[in-house]
Amino acid sequence: MSKIIIGVMGPGELATPIDLDYAEQLGKLIAENNWVLLTGGRNVGVMNAASLGAKSAGGLTVGILPDRTTARMSEFVDLAILTDLGNARNNINVLSATVIVACGMGAGTASEIALALKQPKKVILLNADPVSQQFFCNLSPENLVIANDPQNAIAQIRAILKQ
Amino acid sequence: MSKIIIGVMGPGELATPIDLDYAEQLGKLIAENNWVLLTGGRNVGVMNAASLGAKSAGGLTVGILPDRTTARMSEFVDLAILTDLGNARNNINVLSATVIVACGMGAGTASEIALALKQPKKVILLNADPVSQQFFCNLSPENLVIANDPQNAIAQIRAILKQ
Amino acid sequence: MSKIIIGVMGPGELATPIDLDYAEQLGKLIAENNWVLLTGGRNVGVMNAASLGAKSAGGLTVGILPDRTTARMSEFVDLAILTDLGNARNNINVLSATVIVACGMGAGTASEIALALKQPKKVILLNADPVSQQFFCNLSPENLVIANDPQNAIAQIRAILKQ
Amino acid sequence: MSKIIIGVMGPGELATPIDLDYAEQLGKLIAENNWVLLTGGRNVGVMNAASLGAKSAGGLTVGILPDRTTARMSEFVDLAILTDLGNARNNINVLSATVIVACGMGAGTASEIALALKQPKKVILLNADPVSQQFFCNLSPENLVIANDPQNAIAQIRAILKQ
Repeated sequence: MSKIIIGVMGPGELATPIDLDYAEQLGKLIAENNWVLLTGGRNVGVMNAASLGAKSAGGLTVGILPDRTTARMSEFVDLAILTDLGNARNNINVLSATVIVACGMGAGTASEIALALKQPKKVILLNADPVSQQFFCNLSPENLVIANDPQNAIAQIRAILKQ
Repeated sequence: MSKIIIGVMGPGELATPIDLDYAEQLGKLIAENNWVLLTGGRNVGVMNAASLGAKSAGGLTVGILPDRTTARMSEFVDLAILTDLGNARNNINVLSATVIVACGMGAGTASEIALALKQPKKVILLNADPVSQQFFCNLSPENLVIANDPQNAIAQIRAILKQ
Repeated sequence: MSKIIIGVMGPGELATPIDLDYAEQLGKLIAENNWVLLTGGRNVGVMNAASLGAKSAGGLTVGILPDRTTARMSEFVDLAILTDLGNARNNINVLSATVIVACGMGAGTASEIALALKQPKKVILLNADPVSQQFFCNLSPENLVIANDPQNAIAQIRAILKQ
Repeated sequence: MSKIIIGVMGPGELATPIDLDYAEQLGKLIAENNWVLLTGGRNVGVMNAASLGAKSAGGLTVGILPDRTTARMSEFVDLAILTDLGNARNNINVLSATVIVACGMGAGTASEIALALKQPKKVILLNADPVSQQFFCNLSPENLVIANDPQNAIAQIRAILKQ
């Protein structure tokens, strides 16, 4: 049986300090639960922070990169999947993760949440503003979960995996 | 010089009667302006209605299909681009259109708007609810345009093409 | 009913003078038959020559570009499909064309022929060396056709379209 | 630093008994060298046999699936990357592997070899007939390596990794 993969999506260059802090905590907690972390693999923002967090706890990290080389890859990615698909790779992130946590918000992150809800696949929103919460809740109330902090997001993942 | 392509995105099976009416009008007006219509190419919803509208005015229609066959293709598509990419084809829709009109709302449409704003590329929202308008305006206020009806959307396209 | 699309694939920078001459003739003949020409869309080699030929006869040309911009696009492309997929776009070329003509040989062209035979889809080899002919014939003898010159390739396309 | 990934490509349903035997040996040897095995992830042919071999030696296996679900996945895949890209995923296989071994021959395998040589990336041919060897050697002599058996392929991988 293949391993459980948890996707953590979020802004790159535009991530806020709280996004980064939460992403690092998420990565660490995901590793401690023996789940594999999947991100977009770049060396910035939530992708980098989550990968760093997972590696700090001895976890395994997968990066689904938009590029054909590792030039912009996070140093905390164990397995680099080089897609050369640009943003079309966002759909692979969503399909390959069993559960998705969106940490923060931005245009790329929004595309991933929307693609996930279309599958449909469960998405946990962390550190999202009320308008974003309302927008995605309107799109697919049955697949959207709001988490208050990384610990709560992990509890929600556990609940979803038990379903 | 290659032709000007206007993308019309919107819900498939879940399109509302107003979405369909507006999409058909949009398709007709796009053809009358001698622009090429690009849609997701399927035989339902906004994709089908816009293609029908464009053909009724003698326009040229391109369908970027998620599939590897034409089984689910709108009969009003002139040029079928078969991608077999599933929803990853949404990014091609966005990149290939000079301007994008989102007519109605849904998870797939939301992914296309978000991918467009990320480029960044101008997106005109038509028949979107206030929460959707606010959400995408927060993501990229400088690239988002609200239109009141198909005629207004066409006027906005003309303004954008002049920039 | 959607239009008949003929794909012409072949080397870019490494195209030989005969490849280019044949590609231009092919493009012209495809347009004269009222078929739409599909190529990889770049401004070099067989893609460019075939598109030039088709435009010289008033045809319609589609370019499926590997890029997200038109910077490397042939000026003879009417409809630019911007994929940002790199070489993964080769599969779209193959799926979207009803029949494929490979004019000349190279690594990219070989990938397209192989992907086409896998569908399976008919491929006409033009100006291919004997080893290439033998290799692809071994892969899928029932889908491979050898043409001696552009006129013969067009005759073969007509025969395939009648099947 | 990310892990070294070795790609093993080869026929699915049409794999020969020797292809399967070699693929299983390759998978085992790759795992014993502490490299990660990457395949197309399906539950048939070379993909399945190589994954089985790697798991028998305690290795880590990645499967880059053409599908959006795990229905056709090899049970020996640890990390399932679900692309929903059909054969367009072949380019991801090629880009993500540091070295590629093609074990046996078929249309899909040929597309992967051609895409790899186009990068360019080193490809080791195992159990390929003389026409296939000649064809790919003509395409890119400096990137093509012929191996006589799985042990020799591993020796060639080691030599390439030292470059």
